[in-house]
Amino acid sequence: MKIKLLHTDGKARRGQLKTSHGTIETPFFMTIATVGAIKGLEPSQVKEVGTQVLLGNTYHLHLKPSSEIVRDAGGLHKFMNWNGPMLTDSGGFQVFSLAKTRKITEEGVRFNSHIDGRRIMLTPEESMRIQMNLGADMIMAFDECKANDEKRKVAESMELTTRWSKRSLDFVRKTQAESEEMNPHLPTKDQQLFGIVQGAIYEDLRKKSAQDLVSLGFDGYAIGGLSVGEKEDTMYQMVDFTLPFLPEDQPRYLMGVGTPVNIVETVARGVDMFDCVLPTRNARHGYMYTSQGVVNIRNAQYKNDFTPLDPNCECPTCANYTRAYLRHLINAKELLSHSLLVRHNVAYYHNLMKRVREAIEEDRFEELRQEVRETFQ
Amino acid sequence: MKIKLLHTDGKARRGQLKTSHGTIETPFFMTIATVGAIKGLEPSQVKEVGTQVLLGNTYHLHLKPSSEIVRDAGGLHKFMNWNGPMLTDSGGFQVFSLAKTRKITEEGVRFNSHIDGRRIMLTPEESMRIQMNLGADMIMAFDECKANDEKRKVAESMELTTRWSKRSLDFVRKTQAESEEMNPHLPTKDQQLFGIVQGAIYEDLRKKSAQDLVSLGFDGYAIGGLSVGEKEDTMYQMVDFTLPFLPEDQPRYLMGVGTPVNIVETVARGVDMFDCVLPTRNARHGYMYTSQGVVNIRNAQYKNDFTPLDPNCECPTCANYTRAYLRHLINAKELLSHSLLVRHNVAYYHNLMKRVREAIEEDRFEELRQEVRETFQ
Repeated sequence: MKIKLLHTDGKARRGQLKTSHGTIETPFFMTIATVGAIKGLEPSQVKEVGTQVLLGNTYHLHLKPSSEIVRDAGGLHKFMNWNGPMLTDSGGFQVFSLAKTRKITEEGVRFNSHIDGRRIMLTPEESMRIQMNLGADMIMAFDECKANDEKRKVAESMELTTRWSKRSLDFVRKTQAESEEMNPHLPTKDQQLFGIVQGAIYEDLRKKSAQDLVSLGFDGYAIGGLSVGEKEDTMYQMVDFTLPFLPEDQPRYLMGVGTPVNIVETVARGVDMFDCVLPTRNARHGYMYTSQGVVNIRNAQYKNDFTPLDPNCECPTCANYTRAYLRHLINAKELLSHSLLVRHNVAYYHNLMKRVREAIEEDRFEELRQEVRETFQ
Repeated sequence: MKIKLLHTDGKARRGQLKTSHGTIETPFFMTIATVGAIKGLEPSQVKEVGTQVLLGNTYHLHLKPSSEIVRDAGGLHKFMNWNGPMLTDSGGFQVFSLAKTRKITEEGVRFNSHIDGRRIMLTPEESMRIQMNLGADMIMAFDECKANDEKRKVAESMELTTRWSKRSLDFVRKTQAESEEMNPHLPTKDQQLFGIVQGAIYEDLRKKSAQDLVSLGFDGYAIGGLSVGEKEDTMYQMVDFTLPFLPEDQPRYLMGVGTPVNIVETVARGVDMFDCVLPTRNARHGYMYTSQGVVNIRNAQYKNDFTPLDPNCECPTCANYTRAYLRHLINAKELLSHSLLVRHNVAYYHNLMKRVREAIEEDRFEELRQEVRETFQ
């Protein structure tokens, strides 16, 4: 997978990525569809507000409804009625953040489902098998996400991730070579596999991880294990330090990041891809991103405010409803509040990415970066 | 308010009702927007599946966000972004079903809010004032809904309802005469007031109630206090008995009814208007109305069923998603399940009403009535 670079402004990159489900304009932000659904919204509704790529969670889909059901439906695209590009994660991060009584061995991770306690074994090969059943355009190597620990443990974990990454790659390449028989209806042959650089906040470990993964030869590279509690400056330093070890002509994905400021700060350093729960999770609590900064729509000051949530936003929520109505819905615990608010925050993020792309094209990215910092200071 | 009768087939009536927000084709079913929102759906989405009229609940809107805020927004139409016809109930039914520590006097009802325990007094005049702030096209006289009690108590309650209905009418007519000063932005002058016939299951009380209300002269008439636990045949007998006492040239509204079978059975008796929580409430529990009868979408038999929920339905839920996906969403407790499922049930009801209207026009209503009975037997 090559990124076609159209323009650069400083280290910020404006490009295109081709997938079986269409071309992605970069940099981009992925809307999270955890279990094959966005919180309260249909795929057509998130597409309407600028979503190019959906992200499905392997861990959740493996537990419910199972990757076999999704495969039998014709893959995750058909199952959830989304025909644009899609990425699935490896399941590793959720195993480490949600599952119970984990036991990590060289083979993989054994854990209990957080839903029903069922004992499950996830290995690199099993994660790849699941992701090939799901059939996303971009898939992730199986990794252990070890952050904020002592260096010796992070080093061991990073080396394990490298070995798991090689096993992931071997399984995918071998299966792709045989895929015509295995999954005739799924685009497994075209799936692009990303390796995930680990190493927490240790520069030499990040360097070793990046170099080892690059020598294995993935279709794209992610930086994992950041935005997990470290200081923002530390995150930026790690991105600064790691990116030069990754191929310029391949996509770079900063996993789980972040706030609007985090995004412009790391686009400025050369990142192409992002995902984060912030826009959807915050919306459900009424914490709204707008061109005027954060608006907490639950506040009493909005009860008689008959203006749009964000006067500079063209999303259907801002076009059709007032702050007073949105505040009423969330305070009355109405279901509709979730979809209207999530839609705006998702629109805000995608509109931000659109402005990021335009600013890079027009060599004024620094100006936008400054504006976003001031908006959310 | 006159109903323009276009055709009759037996006692079933096909007509039109004019309101300030458009002409309603009758018979019709109203989609419930309790607190100014349909469960998980936008007004544009319920319009897309055939909703002509929304019903807002006075009791709920009075508690949150208050009718003053809705008035200041320009009325409930503007507040929730619906520019079609709308009806509000009187609040009476919810006071008697939801509120706590009620005390009924000649003046009205004093009760505690089921949300925060706040002490509230609702009188006929206060209910009318609230409904005039909300500004719906059709509003309801304040009534006491007393069902399934001994006859003496039902008689007292029915007489109280008649006196409250007269006070409701007096307040509305007086306010409408002055309305240009009071609410210049709300269509209070055009609001149509319905009287509600009570009397539970006692024919002579129903007769007295209907005759007294008709002599007062309302814009339309509702039958209240049915579908509250009595046998279905008793409900049908009460409708049979009551309708002849109501003017033929005015709309007849059977409140809180009902199942698809209840609807065709009472359209057959001459009812024009319906509302019911069944399609929305049942959808949230996966109890789905289809052309093939009830489908409980949670059932395991649907986990690999990649066909539409209802192959004969053209709603976006049936056009875009499978039974397996809908089952997955509701079992995974995904927010999206509510809006997709509610939309289908709402579509089913409105499609049923469309078929009812067409069948009456074409003098084959009995055939449709029989078909619906067989579908849900």
